[in-house]
Amino acid sequence: MSFGKTLYATENPELFAKFTPLIEEYNKAREEQIKNYDPEFYAKCKDTVAPAEQLDSEPINALQYLEKLLTPSELVIVNEYSIKDLLDKQLDKKLTAVEIINAYIKAAIISQFSTNCGMQFLIPEALSKAKKLDEYLAEHGKLIGPFHGIPVSLKEQMNYAGKQTSASYVAYLKNIPKESGVTIQILDKLGANFHIRTAQPQAIMWLDTGNVITGRTRNPVSTRLSPGGSSGGESACVGSHGSCIGVGSDIGGSIRAPAAFANIFGLKPTTRRFSLMNGLSGGKGQESIVAVQGPLARSIEEMEYFTENYLNEGKPWEYDPLCVPIAWNTKVELPKKIRIGVLFDDNLVTPYPAVTRGMESVVEKLSKAGEDFEIVDLSKYWYSEKEMEEIYTMNIGLYTCDGNKVQLGMFGESGEPLEKLTRHFLNFDGGVERSVYENRMFNAKRDSLKVEMFNKFFKGLKLDFILSPTYCGPSEKQENSLYWGYTSFWNLLDYPNVIFPSGVVHDDKIDTIDKLAGPLKSNKYEAMVWKKDGKVIYDPKDYIGGPVALQLTAERFHDEDAVACVKKITKVLGIERR
Amino acid sequence: MSFGKTLYATENPELFAKFTPLIEEYNKAREEQIKNYDPEFYAKCKDTVAPAEQLDSEPINALQYLEKLLTPSELVIVNEYSIKDLLDKQLDKKLTAVEIINAYIKAAIISQFSTNCGMQFLIPEALSKAKKLDEYLAEHGKLIGPFHGIPVSLKEQMNYAGKQTSASYVAYLKNIPKESGVTIQILDKLGANFHIRTAQPQAIMWLDTGNVITGRTRNPVSTRLSPGGSSGGESACVGSHGSCIGVGSDIGGSIRAPAAFANIFGLKPTTRRFSLMNGLSGGKGQESIVAVQGPLARSIEEMEYFTENYLNEGKPWEYDPLCVPIAWNTKVELPKKIRIGVLFDDNLVTPYPAVTRGMESVVEKLSKAGEDFEIVDLSKYWYSEKEMEEIYTMNIGLYTCDGNKVQLGMFGESGEPLEKLTRHFLNFDGGVERSVYENRMFNAKRDSLKVEMFNKFFKGLKLDFILSPTYCGPSEKQENSLYWGYTSFWNLLDYPNVIFPSGVVHDDKIDTIDKLAGPLKSNKYEAMVWKKDGKVIYDPKDYIGGPVALQLTAERFHDEDAVACVKKITKVLGIERR
Repeated sequence: MSFGKTLYATENPELFAKFTPLIEEYNKAREEQIKNYDPEFYAKCKDTVAPAEQLDSEPINALQYLEKLLTPSELVIVNEYSIKDLLDKQLDKKLTAVEIINAYIKAAIISQFSTNCGMQFLIPEALSKAKKLDEYLAEHGKLIGPFHGIPVSLKEQMNYAGKQTSASYVAYLKNIPKESGVTIQILDKLGANFHIRTAQPQAIMWLDTGNVITGRTRNPVSTRLSPGGSSGGESACVGSHGSCIGVGSDIGGSIRAPAAFANIFGLKPTTRRFSLMNGLSGGKGQESIVAVQGPLARSIEEMEYFTENYLNEGKPWEYDPLCVPIAWNTKVELPKKIRIGVLFDDNLVTPYPAVTRGMESVVEKLSKAGEDFEIVDLSKYWYSEKEMEEIYTMNIGLYTCDGNKVQLGMFGESGEPLEKLTRHFLNFDGGVERSVYENRMFNAKRDSLKVEMFNKFFKGLKLDFILSPTYCGPSEKQENSLYWGYTSFWNLLDYPNVIFPSGVVHDDKIDTIDKLAGPLKSNKYEAMVWKKDGKVIYDPKDYIGGPVALQLTAERFHDEDAVACVKKITKVLGIERR
Repeated sequence: MSFGKTLYATENPELFAKFTPLIEEYNKAREEQIKNYDPEFYAKCKDTVAPAEQLDSEPINALQYLEKLLTPSELVIVNEYSIKDLLDKQLDKKLTAVEIINAYIKAAIISQFSTNCGMQFLIPEALSKAKKLDEYLAEHGKLIGPFHGIPVSLKEQMNYAGKQTSASYVAYLKNIPKESGVTIQILDKLGANFHIRTAQPQAIMWLDTGNVITGRTRNPVSTRLSPGGSSGGESACVGSHGSCIGVGSDIGGSIRAPAAFANIFGLKPTTRRFSLMNGLSGGKGQESIVAVQGPLARSIEEMEYFTENYLNEGKPWEYDPLCVPIAWNTKVELPKKIRIGVLFDDNLVTPYPAVTRGMESVVEKLSKAGEDFEIVDLSKYWYSEKEMEEIYTMNIGLYTCDGNKVQLGMFGESGEPLEKLTRHFLNFDGGVERSVYENRMFNAKRDSLKVEMFNKFFKGLKLDFILSPTYCGPSEKQENSLYWGYTSFWNLLDYPNVIFPSGVVHDDKIDTIDKLAGPLKSNKYEAMVWKKDGKVIYDPKDYIGGPVALQLTAERFHDEDAVACVKKITKVLGIERR
């Protein structure tokens, strides 16, 4: 959050100084709002939740604070009731939308103390909407829509009408959109209640979350770890039960890494199914790799319910001409024997021992699950280390090949200090400005990979799905998520993925360096992740509490199949609602 | 077809000389094939069809030669029977696939003499397939698929397994793909019979058709005029009944201009519905404006039948991961009162008098057609001249903003001479190489236009469709199709269009310069089309026989609605199968 010794071209301490009052005012407004909501509760939270320094340095599970700070009836709302339960109980007059939102506002405030997940709270709006929803139900005897009274958190970069929408760019604290994002409009119409807008990292291009306005966000299951990013505010909030479900976005792993790091569920749908209309990012006009929106959820059933209703009741294509009008298929029939290709290692960056243990554990359990699953080891079919190095370099270069002009322009408006992972991103493929010709050749190569994945893997090997790590580590240390390849590969190819907890959590006694299957590879990305000054820097103690969640990939537009398969897999694994 | 005084950078007469034997061999093979098919018929064609010089200088309707050269039973096959008739008559044993293909091979040979539509004939293959189809029907008592024995012409740029596929690039006469285009694979499987692959212009980027290999293609309804392009071989072939239906492609008007110039029907579908997989073009990796495939047809009912079966039986998304899995909606319900926005003039280039007369005629007939249609004049809502000039300059610049590197690379391989309209294309927006940043800003502007069209026109004005000219002229003189705006605008925005004959044909007595509604505009594109050395060059005599076909635009992915509406419109107009 401060300027380094050498200033980046856009960094301008003098200019930035003019924005610090705006930042202070923004943060004060949030703090005042949560304080004014219930000063007593606020004080109790402050006393109960460990101080920031402790949270930042110890592997604390933030979920513990719920029990200490909520009443039993609030606790059951935020911990026990799924979306379906909340809807049923409202219909049965056992619960009101006002009770639900109050419990979740409190949980979100606790989450704010423990994980620093929020950019902006919407408490007065949420309370007012809950009241209206209760009145509607009383008057009409039915729910207003499939999300009636369901507390939903929103990644802040989505425009919210009348509210500052900065996407964590300091200069854009002045940006107040007139119209909300299409997804927000749809969810609002279907009855969802929004009480918190969550943090994203600077540039919105880290697999971690921290920015100059609100600082760092923490991992809800092990606070000193990263919550992932760029939807890390979402994973922290949903993962600590601060919301029932959340909406994030993903262009390189930004739904999936956070979902995995927080040990919850995430869906990166096929592009153009969710609407991205009315949002702010530094990727304006970049379409070689297309961003998507998608949910982060506490159970696969809720993820399915959310997506089905968002698409089939919400029909985003009636709001946004960039969307494809493809309803959610509610009649998925999985093959009797599901053939899953398994990729333990992408041949570029070796996963950490806990991740490999998580993969092995899941594969073993699926293999033993009777006749339902057939496992195909992809190691002998996958791209070679050299091919992967080329693919990944192109992949990350496609983000920065405008020479970062859009991003730097947005940073330059405030002169804000650029953080470590922002600089890491800006330096992808050297941050080189490419010619349109080079960009087109990359596009053609990308399409040939997309076709090859289809022909060689899904058709040729007759795979139904591909199972792989979500990230090389069992979550990650703060400011250390350097390698995007396990997720960004699927953005490049635009195949949908579902993230689900494996049941395995990093264990510093078990997941030691000697557990590596083979020697480390010699490419530069392996060195970037594993080494410092040529020496391996892996310390199992750094990852205490870090969960392993895996990634299931389906064919394009077969998002429904991946969700259905994860439902089946999590049953085998015994993975329950978080 | 010859080098000018000043050579373009890629032109290389010495290198090109090495390719002339290949060209001669290629053309000779075609000539030999059609001659060997039936030497007597060939000789009769040669005697009957006017010589090239006459066809090039007079407004001859090529359809007349069918009656002179075909037997009555052949004539009824190529002139009278729709796809459905041909299928029924095969089922009823009134016709065989062999009889059908022989009639169409003859008609295509006549078309070759009159319009020079073909690059390559597939006579032995087509005869052999017809025989197999007849055997299949005899054995199984049913048709093999919805296109059983239907003669389909194919734009040559689509890969054809084992056959030279040059896309009219001289150097690519050496290119022999192993696998056919996905669309060809699908149509083949569904029973279609391919007897001719048709010409496209050099660069595949003219609204006219001529290339260094096969020379110029002629307009089937007025031979000295252009057949349009780039699918001008298709429009010439289908329009002269050389095939029952044809497959073209469109990135700036390449299905629609040819369909309009030949007075037939054309569909430019929403992108990613038809598969473009396995084809050759100079647009590799360019995706700011995405090309599409689509049919050119002799009736709207056949176009609908073709598209429905291609999508719903063929399922291109099962072959091509770039396709969207959206079936053809067979249950379109048009509004009781169809609200059509009418754009007489795009505010950039004034249409020729015949085109305006065609628009007025159709609007008048629709207005009088009882309660079915409501007409909204868009002139006061449309973009201003200045806005359109900016949009169009960006539009055409998006094609060339790689500095034409891909195209020039392909031309450079043979050093082939570059024709007038190729140079015109290469000079779009000055042929300037843009930065990735500029390209991204164009993409963002394009998306904002796409959204504005949706919000302001379709939603705001509650339009169901937009009716506009297909081209500024009633077809065009050879080498004179300079302005793409009436069609390319809809590629930029990616809205689907259907082309249909208006019933109006240019009349040199009526469509005189004094019929212009107002003065010409002052922008450079108007001057490019209308003037030479500052003087208006319009001569009504130049356009004798030029038909006026119009363009109906629907919302994205509402291709079905546009087709359904054109069915209704053509009923009102009394437009029958061509």
